[in-house]
Amino acid sequence: MNLSLTLPEIGQRAKRAARSLYAADSELKNRALAQAASSLLAQSEAILAANQLDLAAGREVGLTSALLDRLALTPERLSGIAQGMLDVAALPDPVGALLDETVRPNGLKIVKRAVPIGVIGVIFEARPNVSADSAALCLKSGNASILRGGKEAIRSNQAIVTAIRSGIEEAGLPADCVQLITDTSRQTATEFMHLDAYVDLLIPRGGPGLIQAVKREATVPVIETGAGTCHIYVAPSCDPEMAVSIINNAKTSRPSVCNAVECILVHSACAPDILPLVAAKLKEKNVELRADKRALMLLRDAVPATEEDWGKEYDDYILAIRIVDSTDEAIEYIRTYSTHHSEAILTRDEAEAHHFMESIDSAALYWNASTRFTDGGEFGMGAEIGISTQKLHARGPLGVKQLCSEKYYIYGSGQIR
Amino acid sequence: MNLSLTLPEIGQRAKRAARSLYAADSELKNRALAQAASSLLAQSEAILAANQLDLAAGREVGLTSALLDRLALTPERLSGIAQGMLDVAALPDPVGALLDETVRPNGLKIVKRAVPIGVIGVIFEARPNVSADSAALCLKSGNASILRGGKEAIRSNQAIVTAIRSGIEEAGLPADCVQLITDTSRQTATEFMHLDAYVDLLIPRGGPGLIQAVKREATVPVIETGAGTCHIYVAPSCDPEMAVSIINNAKTSRPSVCNAVECILVHSACAPDILPLVAAKLKEKNVELRADKRALMLLRDAVPATEEDWGKEYDDYILAIRIVDSTDEAIEYIRTYSTHHSEAILTRDEAEAHHFMESIDSAALYWNASTRFTDGGEFGMGAEIGISTQKLHARGPLGVKQLCSEKYYIYGSGQIR
Repeated sequence: MNLSLTLPEIGQRAKRAARSLYAADSELKNRALAQAASSLLAQSEAILAANQLDLAAGREVGLTSALLDRLALTPERLSGIAQGMLDVAALPDPVGALLDETVRPNGLKIVKRAVPIGVIGVIFEARPNVSADSAALCLKSGNASILRGGKEAIRSNQAIVTAIRSGIEEAGLPADCVQLITDTSRQTATEFMHLDAYVDLLIPRGGPGLIQAVKREATVPVIETGAGTCHIYVAPSCDPEMAVSIINNAKTSRPSVCNAVECILVHSACAPDILPLVAAKLKEKNVELRADKRALMLLRDAVPATEEDWGKEYDDYILAIRIVDSTDEAIEYIRTYSTHHSEAILTRDEAEAHHFMESIDSAALYWNASTRFTDGGEFGMGAEIGISTQKLHARGPLGVKQLCSEKYYIYGSGQIR
Repeated sequence: MNLSLTLPEIGQRAKRAARSLYAADSELKNRALAQAASSLLAQSEAILAANQLDLAAGREVGLTSALLDRLALTPERLSGIAQGMLDVAALPDPVGALLDETVRPNGLKIVKRAVPIGVIGVIFEARPNVSADSAALCLKSGNASILRGGKEAIRSNQAIVTAIRSGIEEAGLPADCVQLITDTSRQTATEFMHLDAYVDLLIPRGGPGLIQAVKREATVPVIETGAGTCHIYVAPSCDPEMAVSIINNAKTSRPSVCNAVECILVHSACAPDILPLVAAKLKEKNVELRADKRALMLLRDAVPATEEDWGKEYDDYILAIRIVDSTDEAIEYIRTYSTHHSEAILTRDEAEAHHFMESIDSAALYWNASTRFTDGGEFGMGAEIGISTQKLHARGPLGVKQLCSEKYYIYGSGQIR
């Protein structure tokens, strides 16, 4: 990797590489992914050594142990990352898929097919696995990628991207299919967000601060990802055992992710029966319950919720609880406080479920299942580069299909208008 | 219409109206469109009077006759606008369309359906018909619209939107499904571009200056439309008669629109035969030819092209002409200078056509047909709100289907992860 390139130079190289990828067939792309995965393993010593330097620097500046854990690579994690690249290679190629076809009365045949987007920029924070995941998903969908990770992981990312690039090159594609911005200054990040001339799409992967900054600053089109304040509404006719199981799973199976539930709305008619059961189960994992006034009366160990708790994304072992008197009240609440990621209704009443699912405009609406399923793998897309919570282009998990654009091919025989 | 609303108030009203539209069935939406069309005709006297005031003000500030013509409404134009609304009503309802369906191994049924985007902002320039067209397309696709037209047409737009709103209300939907921003100051336009809290998508319809300003300023997601520097490549094996007919059509049938051709690339092997025929035909319409050095030698009446002519969108009776020595040279030129709207190849050679169409990443690639067909109506979509030249969400004509987002419905029986 040439570390002294300017951003426009990186952009030009990406654009050139994107042309090779645009023309590459599935076999060539898959070979590049396989070679990149082997190269990651072959260079594991260098990658782990670089990661040790990042960890040492992180300890020096006082990163929390949670952050240090996210940053840390082990031989096992590294083979997980390499396996992830092979899994992406094994996905069906999204490029060239027939999206629409029509013959017009004048004889023009109009065919719409999926094509790569071109150059995709990814801005992410501490976890070094994101660089390999993102590179693999972009490459599979025929896109060149420009990665910009956080400074905490810079040495690890450099080592990973160096390995991936050499694998890609061995397979016969330009190394510049994947590039890393090694200057982690804020100024360079801002310049990156304005690189319209070369970058077709920018995906921020990280916390709300990062996402808002990108959205505010970027002139490159952005897909927002990952803001997840998910809700579960417990209706009177729910199956109580199922309710406890789903709420427990949605809250405690992995509280740090965006599809975890943050707030449950419980109908007043079933709250006295359901809430104590839920509380007992969540107590096993020491989940803090923040309850509204009416729920407080039913819960021994809850603390009073404040205004800030409504709509809050905890990403932690904390759950907000609120009593409602109707499905419509639950709907209205979710419309107001949700980030439009994933919401669930637990009920035996089909008409009620239908009304709930039709009325709320979030990416994913669940009936009697955990919100934790909003995930590329669980949806059968293979890996994902994030969960879109915006309404343009794609909503929900962004897999390789969603990393494609479209193009019209029009076949004529001299037609004029 | 309450003219003293602030932008956030307009946004809140749009959001509320969007909820009614989200739940509206096809029949209700179609009735609203039909009522709006009748209302336009019933109020034609007021609309034409308002338009006369706009025209008088326009003459006073010295608008060109071309601009005054765009601005002018006549009874015929007005019934054309009303008919356009009825045509939109007659289109299939895009909302609810099944986009994908899968049952996962764990029994979860995942269904993806088209849903409205929500609130769509449209910023446009002089032509008052744009307000009615945009309102109709948004309403048909279940979206509330906030329109912001140019100050030249403000009285006409107010009269048109007032009529549409009363029609919508008579049909039983909120009048706020369509709102007009009556303050045409630049400051208000800028504020509009930052109305993320209420607006889900912003579509600029107008010249490159407007589109670039919106792209630079907006934090609301934008779809760029309408920049059209289209090319036709004439290959040695083309049918000369077809070439003359297509080039003439693509240049002169309506030079002011974005799908008109601006530059032809002619292979040196056929240029001596083809160019004089093309020039003779275009002379009938007094098209100015701006030719590179080699083409100049073959053309009596052409003027020398300068560097500014390459990539230029004339929107006028002007055509740039350039000689190339290979298909790949044509491809490379188009990659550099095109706005990625529409390009055509004229050839009898299928392999050459395939190579050209695969290698260039524009929204529409034509083989032996005029670029003028890139249009919602011609593509069979009915009306369109613009031609997208960006790669996210939708490319090419934006019809009612493209004004939709998507949503996942997940049906479970207690699944946890």
